[in-house]
Amino acid sequence: MESKLPVYEHVVQYYETDRMGVVHHSNYIRWFEEARIYVFDRIGLSYRAMEDQGIVSPVVAVECRYKTMSKFYDTVEVRLAFKGYTGVRLNIEYEVVDKATGEVRCTGKSEHCFISPEGRIMSVRRSFPEYDAILSEYSKED
Amino acid sequence: MESKLPVYEHVVQYYETDRMGVVHHSNYIRWFEEARIYVFDRIGLSYRAMEDQGIVSPVVAVECRYKTMSKFYDTVEVRLAFKGYTGVRLNIEYEVVDKATGEVRCTGKSEHCFISPEGRIMSVRRSFPEYDAILSEYSKED
Amino acid sequence: MESKLPVYEHVVQYYETDRMGVVHHSNYIRWFEEARIYVFDRIGLSYRAMEDQGIVSPVVAVECRYKTMSKFYDTVEVRLAFKGYTGVRLNIEYEVVDKATGEVRCTGKSEHCFISPEGRIMSVRRSFPEYDAILSEYSKED
Amino acid sequence: MESKLPVYEHVVQYYETDRMGVVHHSNYIRWFEEARIYVFDRIGLSYRAMEDQGIVSPVVAVECRYKTMSKFYDTVEVRLAFKGYTGVRLNIEYEVVDKATGEVRCTGKSEHCFISPEGRIMSVRRSFPEYDAILSEYSKED
Repeated sequence: MESKLPVYEHVVQYYETDRMGVVHHSNYIRWFEEARIYVFDRIGLSYRAMEDQGIVSPVVAVECRYKTMSKFYDTVEVRLAFKGYTGVRLNIEYEVVDKATGEVRCTGKSEHCFISPEGRIMSVRRSFPEYDAILSEYSKED
Repeated sequence: MESKLPVYEHVVQYYETDRMGVVHHSNYIRWFEEARIYVFDRIGLSYRAMEDQGIVSPVVAVECRYKTMSKFYDTVEVRLAFKGYTGVRLNIEYEVVDKATGEVRCTGKSEHCFISPEGRIMSVRRSFPEYDAILSEYSKED
Repeated sequence: MESKLPVYEHVVQYYETDRMGVVHHSNYIRWFEEARIYVFDRIGLSYRAMEDQGIVSPVVAVECRYKTMSKFYDTVEVRLAFKGYTGVRLNIEYEVVDKATGEVRCTGKSEHCFISPEGRIMSVRRSFPEYDAILSEYSKED
Repeated sequence: MESKLPVYEHVVQYYETDRMGVVHHSNYIRWFEEARIYVFDRIGLSYRAMEDQGIVSPVVAVECRYKTMSKFYDTVEVRLAFKGYTGVRLNIEYEVVDKATGEVRCTGKSEHCFISPEGRIMSVRRSFPEYDAILSEYSKED
């Protein structure tokens, strides 16, 4: 996955495993969020700052395709790429990779919109040009 | 455990197990909450109604002593008893029991206070006598 | 969603909400699993019995499209339909609906395979014809 | 809290908050585990290595007393101290502290035993003297 975005690392916790002995599939959806929030923060788009301004960015859709299993205390890297940012919507692609072996654990996608302090779907481009500039910059494909 | 309170049932979910093949210990704390909310609701103390009035009842302390292990798809009963209700504070005792065998899975306790809409510790006795009557009634030990 | 399968009910727990005041999106993936296991059990395909025979059915892929928000202590219905069962793979479609209003909370899909006691992808049709008969019966579209 | 043990840091995740806008109380129990596993690993007691040898260390009891609330994206430090190690049982005390302000979020305790590969309660002192040496060293109070 090609991306200029920072990479997020997660250490697999005991409570994330299930009786199959591997990570429960629902946790990858949570790791996508962990990574998204971390990456946003690193590039100047703090969730907390945005929510303090009244902006929320709900998940409109999410998907995940599982390839191999993560085990307890593995370190995984979550890599993101922004796709198809329109000023109103943002799609993100994910790849979770075992840090030690490089093996791909899963790939995924999420779709997001932005809700204004008034509770309406909002154009980031129009209302928050400084955030728009960042999202546009990292969505560019060369 | 002697108590006039209704009993809550929970079916153990796959995602609640861990790689030891049994329920992760943190989930019992969540089942205490599930049971507490269910029981409150059944006796006329809806959490949602209370929160709509601005009252929240945070957990001040919790403890759990594990006896035996719950497994996937077991049905457990969570039994509650109110202890030492003072009008301001409420202590709850718990017993989680396997429904099929009656084996005790764990015992526990939680302590609660009540926060008023103004964000201060509140006397339920003084501010919400109708809730106080219910809590008093079920805290009585004969 | 048309389906002969039983409907699963879930009561939204406090710990399933997040600071937006609604259910965290990752929990719907868990509810899909809760519903799947419940429905399988009701139609004679007990996960626990299957796992005791050494069969596991991992999630190969999952997706969810969020429409509206579930709130604390709502009761939701999770409806399933089996799609495209091949004897080797099973696709399941989901609809989560608010029980009180009928409003659709989300729709989703999951893909499953079956792993034999020897750890290999397995044809249920060939190895477990009694399970195959059930899956085939409920996958039929009239 | 005085301790020679390394300190564990955790960044509060979105999915760890609840509709009160703060971290759900059950997550502190999980953070205790995260910290315990991290600290064990750093001092030469890898959970994964132990479990590969067939040793498991279940939680016998846990308790937590909540002081103040953690918020989304706060960094907390989890500090541990080993107490009352007997060769057979280990007690651990915890303090969760906001990294930025030093404010104590909660204090807690957990009790542990060790189960041998044969499934029996085990004396670490007798069976795994190298692990015993480490636990003894860090349990010493000066």
